[in-house]
Amino acid sequence: MKALVYNGPRDVSVSQVPDPGIDRPGDAVIQVTRTNICGSDLHMYEGRTDIEPGRVLGHETMGQVVETGPAVEQLRPGDMVTVPFNVACGFCPNCERGLTSYCLTANPDPHGAGAAYGVAGMGPWSGGQAEYLKIPWADFNALPLPEDAEEKQNDYVMLPDIFPTGYHATEMADVTPGDTVVIYGAGPVGLMAAYSALIKGAAHVMVVDRHPDRLALAQKIGAIPIDDSKASPVDQVLARTNGLGADAGCECVGYQAHDPAGHEHPNQTLNELVGSVKYTGNIGVVGNYPPTDPGGADELAKHGEIAFDYGSFWTKGQHMGTGQCPVKTYDQQLRDLIHTGKATPSFVISHQLPLDQAPQGYRHFDNRDNGWTKVTLSPAG
Amino acid sequence: MKALVYNGPRDVSVSQVPDPGIDRPGDAVIQVTRTNICGSDLHMYEGRTDIEPGRVLGHETMGQVVETGPAVEQLRPGDMVTVPFNVACGFCPNCERGLTSYCLTANPDPHGAGAAYGVAGMGPWSGGQAEYLKIPWADFNALPLPEDAEEKQNDYVMLPDIFPTGYHATEMADVTPGDTVVIYGAGPVGLMAAYSALIKGAAHVMVVDRHPDRLALAQKIGAIPIDDSKASPVDQVLARTNGLGADAGCECVGYQAHDPAGHEHPNQTLNELVGSVKYTGNIGVVGNYPPTDPGGADELAKHGEIAFDYGSFWTKGQHMGTGQCPVKTYDQQLRDLIHTGKATPSFVISHQLPLDQAPQGYRHFDNRDNGWTKVTLSPAG
Amino acid sequence: MKALVYNGPRDVSVSQVPDPGIDRPGDAVIQVTRTNICGSDLHMYEGRTDIEPGRVLGHETMGQVVETGPAVEQLRPGDMVTVPFNVACGFCPNCERGLTSYCLTANPDPHGAGAAYGVAGMGPWSGGQAEYLKIPWADFNALPLPEDAEEKQNDYVMLPDIFPTGYHATEMADVTPGDTVVIYGAGPVGLMAAYSALIKGAAHVMVVDRHPDRLALAQKIGAIPIDDSKASPVDQVLARTNGLGADAGCECVGYQAHDPAGHEHPNQTLNELVGSVKYTGNIGVVGNYPPTDPGGADELAKHGEIAFDYGSFWTKGQHMGTGQCPVKTYDQQLRDLIHTGKATPSFVISHQLPLDQAPQGYRHFDNRDNGWTKVTLSPAG
Amino acid sequence: MKALVYNGPRDVSVSQVPDPGIDRPGDAVIQVTRTNICGSDLHMYEGRTDIEPGRVLGHETMGQVVETGPAVEQLRPGDMVTVPFNVACGFCPNCERGLTSYCLTANPDPHGAGAAYGVAGMGPWSGGQAEYLKIPWADFNALPLPEDAEEKQNDYVMLPDIFPTGYHATEMADVTPGDTVVIYGAGPVGLMAAYSALIKGAAHVMVVDRHPDRLALAQKIGAIPIDDSKASPVDQVLARTNGLGADAGCECVGYQAHDPAGHEHPNQTLNELVGSVKYTGNIGVVGNYPPTDPGGADELAKHGEIAFDYGSFWTKGQHMGTGQCPVKTYDQQLRDLIHTGKATPSFVISHQLPLDQAPQGYRHFDNRDNGWTKVTLSPAG
Repeated sequence: MKALVYNGPRDVSVSQVPDPGIDRPGDAVIQVTRTNICGSDLHMYEGRTDIEPGRVLGHETMGQVVETGPAVEQLRPGDMVTVPFNVACGFCPNCERGLTSYCLTANPDPHGAGAAYGVAGMGPWSGGQAEYLKIPWADFNALPLPEDAEEKQNDYVMLPDIFPTGYHATEMADVTPGDTVVIYGAGPVGLMAAYSALIKGAAHVMVVDRHPDRLALAQKIGAIPIDDSKASPVDQVLARTNGLGADAGCECVGYQAHDPAGHEHPNQTLNELVGSVKYTGNIGVVGNYPPTDPGGADELAKHGEIAFDYGSFWTKGQHMGTGQCPVKTYDQQLRDLIHTGKATPSFVISHQLPLDQAPQGYRHFDNRDNGWTKVTLSPAG
Repeated sequence: MKALVYNGPRDVSVSQVPDPGIDRPGDAVIQVTRTNICGSDLHMYEGRTDIEPGRVLGHETMGQVVETGPAVEQLRPGDMVTVPFNVACGFCPNCERGLTSYCLTANPDPHGAGAAYGVAGMGPWSGGQAEYLKIPWADFNALPLPEDAEEKQNDYVMLPDIFPTGYHATEMADVTPGDTVVIYGAGPVGLMAAYSALIKGAAHVMVVDRHPDRLALAQKIGAIPIDDSKASPVDQVLARTNGLGADAGCECVGYQAHDPAGHEHPNQTLNELVGSVKYTGNIGVVGNYPPTDPGGADELAKHGEIAFDYGSFWTKGQHMGTGQCPVKTYDQQLRDLIHTGKATPSFVISHQLPLDQAPQGYRHFDNRDNGWTKVTLSPAG
Repeated sequence: MKALVYNGPRDVSVSQVPDPGIDRPGDAVIQVTRTNICGSDLHMYEGRTDIEPGRVLGHETMGQVVETGPAVEQLRPGDMVTVPFNVACGFCPNCERGLTSYCLTANPDPHGAGAAYGVAGMGPWSGGQAEYLKIPWADFNALPLPEDAEEKQNDYVMLPDIFPTGYHATEMADVTPGDTVVIYGAGPVGLMAAYSALIKGAAHVMVVDRHPDRLALAQKIGAIPIDDSKASPVDQVLARTNGLGADAGCECVGYQAHDPAGHEHPNQTLNELVGSVKYTGNIGVVGNYPPTDPGGADELAKHGEIAFDYGSFWTKGQHMGTGQCPVKTYDQQLRDLIHTGKATPSFVISHQLPLDQAPQGYRHFDNRDNGWTKVTLSPAG
Repeated sequence: MKALVYNGPRDVSVSQVPDPGIDRPGDAVIQVTRTNICGSDLHMYEGRTDIEPGRVLGHETMGQVVETGPAVEQLRPGDMVTVPFNVACGFCPNCERGLTSYCLTANPDPHGAGAAYGVAGMGPWSGGQAEYLKIPWADFNALPLPEDAEEKQNDYVMLPDIFPTGYHATEMADVTPGDTVVIYGAGPVGLMAAYSALIKGAAHVMVVDRHPDRLALAQKIGAIPIDDSKASPVDQVLARTNGLGADAGCECVGYQAHDPAGHEHPNQTLNELVGSVKYTGNIGVVGNYPPTDPGGADELAKHGEIAFDYGSFWTKGQHMGTGQCPVKTYDQQLRDLIHTGKATPSFVISHQLPLDQAPQGYRHFDNRDNGWTKVTLSPAG
């Protein structure tokens, strides 16, 4: 089959790779009908991780079941499903508690770092930017879709990662109706966090970024765009909250945060969040921060450390939740919102490309070229 | 009346000061029968804060009501009460949500830093290491005690601060029955956190420190002492948890953490906690971290920043709660545990002194002289 | 001043009564600008309670502060405020936990039944259907309004009771985004519950009633009307939920529930809810059920008992929350939703009358005359 | 193999039945080393259910893995495991949310009533009072035990049902440290609820029953026995709680509750709980209440209805949780308490019998013969 293969820094190609098959009784194989390029794919694309050349990327995948192993009970060929980016066994102590993003079985790292399809350091699982994808423990790792699956593919394809991940940020930030929320990052995940906060009844949602196309999308869904290239985002948030700060904050940028002049500061958005959120407020962090970053800007960063404004964080009595989203915790209810027409997360898609054009999609998205907000691929044509 | 007055760094004395009186309709005055010296008093004692000379210290206070203002309904002269260290109005948005440690009324700082008796930066309220103490909004800020109040004073006097504060650490760390818990710091607050975790049914409670008297007390209540001067505490915790780390962690040391050689590292216990707690674990931080620390060890510290091992924190998907304890959230249930004999937190007291000997108490406690775990004062004789 | 006085069953009048004044240091008096007639006023109006003749009714009140006692700090003459229907002291064990609907101080009943303005069995507090109202513990019992208070009075006047009460039903039912919710009763409280569920992101909200005007209002806000005079409401709900039942249910009718033929069955809506809600679902009950009902339909009812379908309730593993709403838990966030234009609960108002016409309002509302959904009074002219 | 077979009302025998084998890839078979007789087995034994003659009973089972299907990854022959009484698939919407007691796959009833081994109406799964037991979806449905499994079998055998079920009652009742708790029923489940409340730090735990041996056991673990044959249990509880009632209540009796004179009243313990628990208190109900009870005492009971004191329940603002315990939610943490010696639930066992003597065990336990608190069977000899 054809698949998007990582060859080296900023070098990906659509190549022939072996078809996946049923290796274990619980496996299923789907034909991929939609699969997105994710901001976290760019960490690998840019060579900031130790992903091996030859790996197939892609962890935002949906498609149609074509084959199932003998232990699979819930899925049948022809079923349309989305595939949570986390690979999870369903029976380890973490999965039992719903922490599928920290499955203790699916990653050879025995300590609980979790697994994903086609991601550096997250197990051997091949990615979904391909014609076919193998799903292990398939009854547990596929979400059945209703009858409008085909028609709403561009919405449902947000369920494997960015819609739940944005939603997770608002859960960790404890967003409730009437809240004022600030979100750092108007990339696809930040937009999904803003969208989730609005779905939950937030009164004011501010989104901090500097790219005009992204800020425009934030405004389009009812959020307040904050351009941090114009003035301090902390000052702008405080000015809109009587000097008190937002009730809740979400980090949707990660360690490659950079200032408007383009310099990388891994502590930037975290310290700005501490300053932007009120005393007693909660902060949810879904942007990625790796334990070490050999390509980091300085000695602290190389060791995964940041100069964190901890004194203010503690004095303000803030709480912070972190980590990969356990997609299965949220994807049923978000699916139902799409099915009933209450949510249309496809608004974030700027480009729908055939699989063959995936390399161009990577290049434009990595450049943050104006208008390239989110790319979805259609491997099935 | 006589009171313990701060004169300057490492200089306190028992001096005559004006008696407190009823200034506002909701005030009450108590005769102080017990009042403790707290670890956070030492930040002021050592001159690491901007507390003004002449201020009366002390925020762990109990006593007998002697006078009440016309708006006081619940208290009558003769009632025995404990006084939560937080001064709180009871009606601001934060108090309404139970966040009395971030009262928006009791501190002239309008942003919600909270107020306390006799503490730097926490409002104008005089301290309780004195013969009498004025309690504002007294119906809200005093906890009535049952008939055994006098007999169990050394237990009840832990209710204004350290018992609830230790308990709060375990709440933020989400300790549940069967958990393995690690606590950094075997000072009075750390011991109360360990005691709280055991009350809640934790299966294993490890306490990290290096002072033999404190480690012995930890062992005495059923915790496992971990001596960090002997070997890496992270390694010791991992060795006792199959390499996975503890389910939950508590920080009870604060920014003046120092290594066994005596060098201060404000990031020490936080980074050790990140290493000691499992993936998906929760951490509660009640040790103090000020927003700026002019006397800090390096440039980062002076600005309240620390070199935080954020990459590991995020990768492990840990959650962290911080800040001053809202004492009223817990003091009723902890009072009931004392009243029914299920808890006797007085085990932490090493010395009971008359008020006149408070300066000696400060000196020995500040030196961490062996055996000086916790000092309580008896101003009423 | 003029006030709406209860004279006896179905006999109320606007009469002269003494002006309220400052009796205790914490009291404030407001000039009432809006005050609603509530469905629970009708229990008294119909003579189903033991309210004494001469009492002033009304517990949904807002207005302008005209006088404050010496202990009041937060309110100043001229401030616009809403008044939660619960009278609460702010310092008893229940108020401290946020359970202001079960204040142990404000009701001479020492067991915690809570207090309210102008309600049978809920303390001596005079009601707000009057020109002026005295608010005890006024700093705690009045909610300050922003600068649009006057302009949005018909929205803000829903804050003292029905908007929070409807919201409380959805909280007890644990409504989350994507849920399917069924609400029994399209009276003002039921409509507020439906509105709250929609604000929280529910995917489907069904409202069961039989009055066309009320069902039309439900439909207007985006809910699905279910007419229980046409077919079994349980069957209709099951038909819309694949036979599984709704995720969550709300009871907004109470013990005077009656069938389409007009016969009263106090167990009707509860048993229908058990049948309409899925296995594992939650039910929130804000409709009133008194401990005894001397005018009840049968022997069980007279003793406050109902023939409850408990076997199904238990087998389905449902959870149920009950009781009076603690308004202060919600009124800040709901105020913010109104202030920012995200909620306009005034949609429920059908009639705005001067105080003098209150008796007509009672008569039409009690008759459920078509179109008399909700009456608000304007005592200030 | 030999197994305990239900022949008809009060007629069970140890008979030869076919050995279980691996039917599906996820199955495992264990040799049963311990299996208890449960109070809910008695509903079947007494003929109050529609269980078919020939069925093997038993749902409290532990043993050693002897065979595994090709999809089983976590278990190996020789492993010691306990088997949660709920049979659950691990991948349906309810299992995903941790509600394994309402698995939508394991019971042909499509609505979510859940499944269990050897229980009427809970699916086709054969019971564990036998030499061998087949476990479906075995990775999900077996709990691995540590190295002391053999030595502590009488403790670990409480993990499949009664220890988690008692614990679940205290979770639904929201028991926290310092609480006063009342538990109706000192049978094995009630004793486990009392034990759980004490582990959680409750200050006072009262247990209501009338059998001297059971009340003595309650007292032995530190609870307060309340003999309801001596005086009204509600009055006794109120007398011990200043007339306010307990903070939390647990129902561990079920629909066959009877008064001291032996007459059955399915509403008895529920109404007594409403009376015994304070305003705002929570109640957890784990006693069984079937949706219909053809052998019930009166017309209401036959339809699964009870005369519930709903007016008091609602007026007191109580919350109630119900239903079968999802064992997997708790069995890991309770296993850890046993492993570390913090819990020894074997105290409840009065008799350990070989499998052959199971019929005598049923007879004595059903008679509530003095001293027959709990019977465990040792099929492996």
